[in-house]
Amino acid sequence: MKPIKVGLLGIGTVGGGTYTVLKRNQEEITRRAGRGIVVTMIADRDLDRANSFADSGVVVTGNAQDVIANPEIDIVVELIGGTTIAKDLVLAAIAQGKHVVTANKALLANHGTEIFSAARGKGVMVAFEAAVAGGIPIIKALREGLTANRIEWVAGIINGTANFILSEMREKSLPFAPVLEQAQKLGYAEADPTYDIEGVDAAHKITLMSAIAFGVPVQFDKVYMEGITKLTQEDISYAEELGYRIKLLGITRRVEKGIELRVHPALIPANRLIANVEGVMNAVMVKGDAVGATLYYGAGAGAEPTASAVIADLVDVARVQTADPANRVPMLSFQPDALTDTPILPMEEVETACYLRLQVIDKPGSLAEISRVLADFNISISAVIQKEVTSEGGPVNVIMLTHKNPEKDMNAAIARIETLSIVTGRVTRIRIEELEG
Amino acid sequence: MKPIKVGLLGIGTVGGGTYTVLKRNQEEITRRAGRGIVVTMIADRDLDRANSFADSGVVVTGNAQDVIANPEIDIVVELIGGTTIAKDLVLAAIAQGKHVVTANKALLANHGTEIFSAARGKGVMVAFEAAVAGGIPIIKALREGLTANRIEWVAGIINGTANFILSEMREKSLPFAPVLEQAQKLGYAEADPTYDIEGVDAAHKITLMSAIAFGVPVQFDKVYMEGITKLTQEDISYAEELGYRIKLLGITRRVEKGIELRVHPALIPANRLIANVEGVMNAVMVKGDAVGATLYYGAGAGAEPTASAVIADLVDVARVQTADPANRVPMLSFQPDALTDTPILPMEEVETACYLRLQVIDKPGSLAEISRVLADFNISISAVIQKEVTSEGGPVNVIMLTHKNPEKDMNAAIARIETLSIVTGRVTRIRIEELEG
Repeated sequence: MKPIKVGLLGIGTVGGGTYTVLKRNQEEITRRAGRGIVVTMIADRDLDRANSFADSGVVVTGNAQDVIANPEIDIVVELIGGTTIAKDLVLAAIAQGKHVVTANKALLANHGTEIFSAARGKGVMVAFEAAVAGGIPIIKALREGLTANRIEWVAGIINGTANFILSEMREKSLPFAPVLEQAQKLGYAEADPTYDIEGVDAAHKITLMSAIAFGVPVQFDKVYMEGITKLTQEDISYAEELGYRIKLLGITRRVEKGIELRVHPALIPANRLIANVEGVMNAVMVKGDAVGATLYYGAGAGAEPTASAVIADLVDVARVQTADPANRVPMLSFQPDALTDTPILPMEEVETACYLRLQVIDKPGSLAEISRVLADFNISISAVIQKEVTSEGGPVNVIMLTHKNPEKDMNAAIARIETLSIVTGRVTRIRIEELEG
Repeated sequence: MKPIKVGLLGIGTVGGGTYTVLKRNQEEITRRAGRGIVVTMIADRDLDRANSFADSGVVVTGNAQDVIANPEIDIVVELIGGTTIAKDLVLAAIAQGKHVVTANKALLANHGTEIFSAARGKGVMVAFEAAVAGGIPIIKALREGLTANRIEWVAGIINGTANFILSEMREKSLPFAPVLEQAQKLGYAEADPTYDIEGVDAAHKITLMSAIAFGVPVQFDKVYMEGITKLTQEDISYAEELGYRIKLLGITRRVEKGIELRVHPALIPANRLIANVEGVMNAVMVKGDAVGATLYYGAGAGAEPTASAVIADLVDVARVQTADPANRVPMLSFQPDALTDTPILPMEEVETACYLRLQVIDKPGSLAEISRVLADFNISISAVIQKEVTSEGGPVNVIMLTHKNPEKDMNAAIARIETLSIVTGRVTRIRIEELEG
């Protein structure tokens, strides 16, 4: 069979990795795919960078439209990132009848509906394994490997930067700020780390997984997002004493009233496998009604791990490009006419157990007063621990673990507790996820 | 599209699970597959059992050939097990031009070459996700998700019975025999547990993974097999003191001279994720040159987890049955004309680090004498620990950890050590696998 011709848009970290791995493993990949997968064009604003990769015969251009307009190109790989230029280029490639492979989670989370619909209109595929959890083949697992299942929930450590920071805070008993600084020095966090530490990147990824797990449209505007910037080393160590690890989780779950879609730090029982995923590594748990709990672990970022996913998509697309679109694996797992309008639940309606830390003036009746407020909102307590005095003669840290309750009740209870004269400062609330198999 | 008609051969645990899950999740599966997947015939010797499942319209027969001969049936699912009747039926189904889905690892490990070749001859597929690690979509991950990679090694906890026994021995400080008995009572081990505890079942599975990881023929006759029956609680607890867990691993690795293919107990660093896979759960690690180390975890057996894999294969086969065979994912991952004859290495040539436990008469010069023997075979020692006396005035347990050495040197060294007058009884040798990411 004749080789598939690929045009790369952007040859930064992932683009460079893709070019390198495709070249290095050309023989191995061809032995599997039954045909070569060859990059014949590279577009990058930085022509020197592009030329430093390009072997002889590979056309380098500063204009991405040259790649899209070239009738020789079978598949366009978009590795530019962002939601503006990348969007125009992806739509232009689709309009030209090109298949698209992309690692761009922000683009698909924000404009997925428009992009997938355009692709269906032209009978081409938009593949995005590399957009979620880097080299872990989690999109394939959800979309094909677990296709027999009614998915109950997906929960993942899907931002390596945030996980690195939390691992370091726990292992070295350090506060957030210096660890973030260290992550930046090591290249694990960007100069502007907002997307990673505020949960935006994880939210992009869980939005995509939610769509393919449950057959609902991509709805990034509905994700609840809470980052890790307010986590203290104190809470991490109390959690550990209680048998939990704190991780930034992306979670999507089907419940009776709708679908939960959220990113926030969570206490996970320390004996769960996923609680032991440390450093920049990623892991995604998927619970299906037939298979039970499964877990997928690997590098969630980096040049070659992400390239591994990009190239897997290239091979998949090469295999099915000639097939009747109706026989292809649907891009979003479910047939486009079989999506449901199950609502994404507002966070107020989500029910979770919680870890609460309060600074309480230590006098008789304090705990009773707090417990009464919780009881008023039907929140029952599973454990109370009084910790050491935070400063000489000052308030003591009281940790409470609660059973599951709707978020809106917990919000109201916390607001009321913060008005009590025996409570100083804000109440720290971190949700608990048991992630039982 | 018209529904795919499936004939089930055998409706025991996995067959029953497959029927149940297909029925329960029919709507969800159809929303993904774009067509129904319907069991229309069931063959089982036990007609009462088959009838207890069959809904109206489903034909029940005691004769599997009825299913194979029925031109209405698109895919035959073989869930009978064993290598005799199952082999005849699978070959007969292929001869009739039927696609086959099977969970039968013994059959494919022993007769894979013949079966896959027959399937290629008729242009049909033999899918076997359920044959390895139950519900974990590891065949798909290896064959498609990691297709960009030159695979370096695959290592798995792929026998739930053996892992349950080792977990219980460690957690409850119990010897092998009573734990096996308990596993049998719980239904985790069969009345004749040989296949599970002697590593035969794991060997079937690692043989299949080796073929698809490296593009070599299925070669069950080349696997080295060592079970868990000789493991003592003592070694498990010494391993733990040293920071390791003992697991029964299936391992296949590409080294310069060929391919390693082996099943044996191994010490794994306790801080590796895979070392923390407990009970009947399975996990497979795959190291690729681009993606690095990845891990896949889930239930390795049971009615519905295995059904999850069977049904995923049914959907895959349904999708590509009309496609040109050249465009399909090759059954063994590599194109049939692209297999290599890289040899499977004899165990004597495999290099591993080892844990050695010796019972030594505690007198001056004992350690020097043993160390000299090891040195004679170029085996260097990374740690020596002298444990308590095994009986009053008797020998002491000495634990040695060695660096990597060829198995044949270690065999010779152990044989010589066992002749030393200061050493009583046999030397216990357990290989060490670092499984570094």
